[in-house]
Amino acid sequence: MDLPESATIVEMLPRDGFQRYPDFVPTDEKVALIDALSTTGVDEIEFTSFTHPKAVPGLRDADEVAARIDRHDDVCYRALVPNTVGMERAIEADVDKVNALVVISDAYRQKNQGMTLEENLAQIEAIVDLADGTDIEVEAGLGTSFFCPYEGEIPKERTLSVVDRVLEAGVDEVTLATTMGMADPRQVTAMLEALYDDHPDADVGLHLHDTNGMSLANTLAAMQCGVSRFDASVCGLGGGTILPGGLGDVGNTPTEDLVNMLRDMAIETRTEFDRLLEVADDVADRLDLGTPSHALMGGTREQVLATTDDEPN
Amino acid sequence: MDLPESATIVEMLPRDGFQRYPDFVPTDEKVALIDALSTTGVDEIEFTSFTHPKAVPGLRDADEVAARIDRHDDVCYRALVPNTVGMERAIEADVDKVNALVVISDAYRQKNQGMTLEENLAQIEAIVDLADGTDIEVEAGLGTSFFCPYEGEIPKERTLSVVDRVLEAGVDEVTLATTMGMADPRQVTAMLEALYDDHPDADVGLHLHDTNGMSLANTLAAMQCGVSRFDASVCGLGGGTILPGGLGDVGNTPTEDLVNMLRDMAIETRTEFDRLLEVADDVADRLDLGTPSHALMGGTREQVLATTDDEPN
Repeated sequence: MDLPESATIVEMLPRDGFQRYPDFVPTDEKVALIDALSTTGVDEIEFTSFTHPKAVPGLRDADEVAARIDRHDDVCYRALVPNTVGMERAIEADVDKVNALVVISDAYRQKNQGMTLEENLAQIEAIVDLADGTDIEVEAGLGTSFFCPYEGEIPKERTLSVVDRVLEAGVDEVTLATTMGMADPRQVTAMLEALYDDHPDADVGLHLHDTNGMSLANTLAAMQCGVSRFDASVCGLGGGTILPGGLGDVGNTPTEDLVNMLRDMAIETRTEFDRLLEVADDVADRLDLGTPSHALMGGTREQVLATTDDEPN
Repeated sequence: MDLPESATIVEMLPRDGFQRYPDFVPTDEKVALIDALSTTGVDEIEFTSFTHPKAVPGLRDADEVAARIDRHDDVCYRALVPNTVGMERAIEADVDKVNALVVISDAYRQKNQGMTLEENLAQIEAIVDLADGTDIEVEAGLGTSFFCPYEGEIPKERTLSVVDRVLEAGVDEVTLATTMGMADPRQVTAMLEALYDDHPDADVGLHLHDTNGMSLANTLAAMQCGVSRFDASVCGLGGGTILPGGLGDVGNTPTEDLVNMLRDMAIETRTEFDRLLEVADDVADRLDLGTPSHALMGGTREQVLATTDDEPN
């Protein structure tokens, strides 16, 4: 099995999680949690979204959060930007990287952003232009790369044609998002093999949701294709802002479960796992999430062994 | 990605699930649920365990269950047997196949069965002898093949040496069990590649627990090695009888999540998915399990699309 030696972890809780949390997470608490995440050794934190406050009210304090968080030199602070207005705010906020959102599905994009694909791609080009001359890296985050709740499975040709366009536009990285958490390992493999055939040197990541429970299997499939950068969210908290009704659980992959798998597989990350678990436990407690991940339920090798320490052997 | 065209599904709820359920599941209810499982298209059902009633009181009605269930011609009815006493009861009960249990870890085996490895292997040989001249197939189920809560990670050489011994003894099939649900995809791959190197024609299955959340990733890894037979349990209900304290969730992989992944990946099974989901929903309801699987939480493509049917598009 051909696997990368190390992986890059992008923590999504402050954006994907807080935008989805039913109540507004107070700015003080956001800042405290982002500062805690900065101590876990994750490589990047998507710490907010510079979106219109009416579109994503949960993140209406993006500028204040950006000003107040404690920035560590070895962490990349990334923010989502849906358009040039958001990009201008991100430049003002001195972010390290932006996640410039492109949605593949027409139905989902119209509901989420009210743009055609061409309008969306024009925004990406303009965002890249604005980044020129700054130190800000631009990642294109491709929403509904695999499945749309309105259109169903997305044929890989459609996603790959958008990959072509954003790379032509000059983005530094591309991230395919399993926005609905409905991708399967064969689909992920087919998509990524075709992508790398066309763009062997592209910097490609995978943004993981876990509605169908296959996200760690998808991670494995992606690693075998050469992907080593993964977006996940502590406690699995996250999900789209325009989810259709009736979907109970469209969370992200819990970062602690992802990192636990990578540790077991001897794939290196910068993450300090014990500290990550401590922060996850604190997040679950503060946001009243129960025990939302396998690692928090005791599903790590150390925890299983620890349960037997007091027993006669 | 090299994958099998079809897979065999072994339903473990009546044995792994009912042995673990905190209350005794009444015999009438067991029979009704096994009869319902027989209508889902699963290939095999491990419908009970012929174990001493004091060791596994939850399954003390094994003989009565065997007599009362409605047997379908196209379903293989399998029972666990820990020793020759159990095998004699299984013959009497006219089962199609037995799961002859061998535990790799010395500490776990001593607690579970009170046998040395040699004693355990002598029982397997005697079980194979008893099966001779009957139509009963013998599968060796290898408990703690990957990880033991007392001994930690099991080196693959130990598991593989037991595989050699049970194949020499003449069993028809071998199933590696992730008893503690702590295996990872790299470990599964290493184990299976070595196993197939030594025994290219062996009939090998994987018995899946999901404590660490990696069981679908482990399934993917196993399929890439050539495995196409998987044990799972509806609603994920299941777990060992001698679990150390403090382990909250040592369930099996939910059958409905496993089959959902295989469907999405276009790997054929005999399972009728809608019926399986209906039975899972009924099991969750009768045994008060909440929504214990991704499929029951709405995580299938059809269910996600159905949520959008009433919305303006």
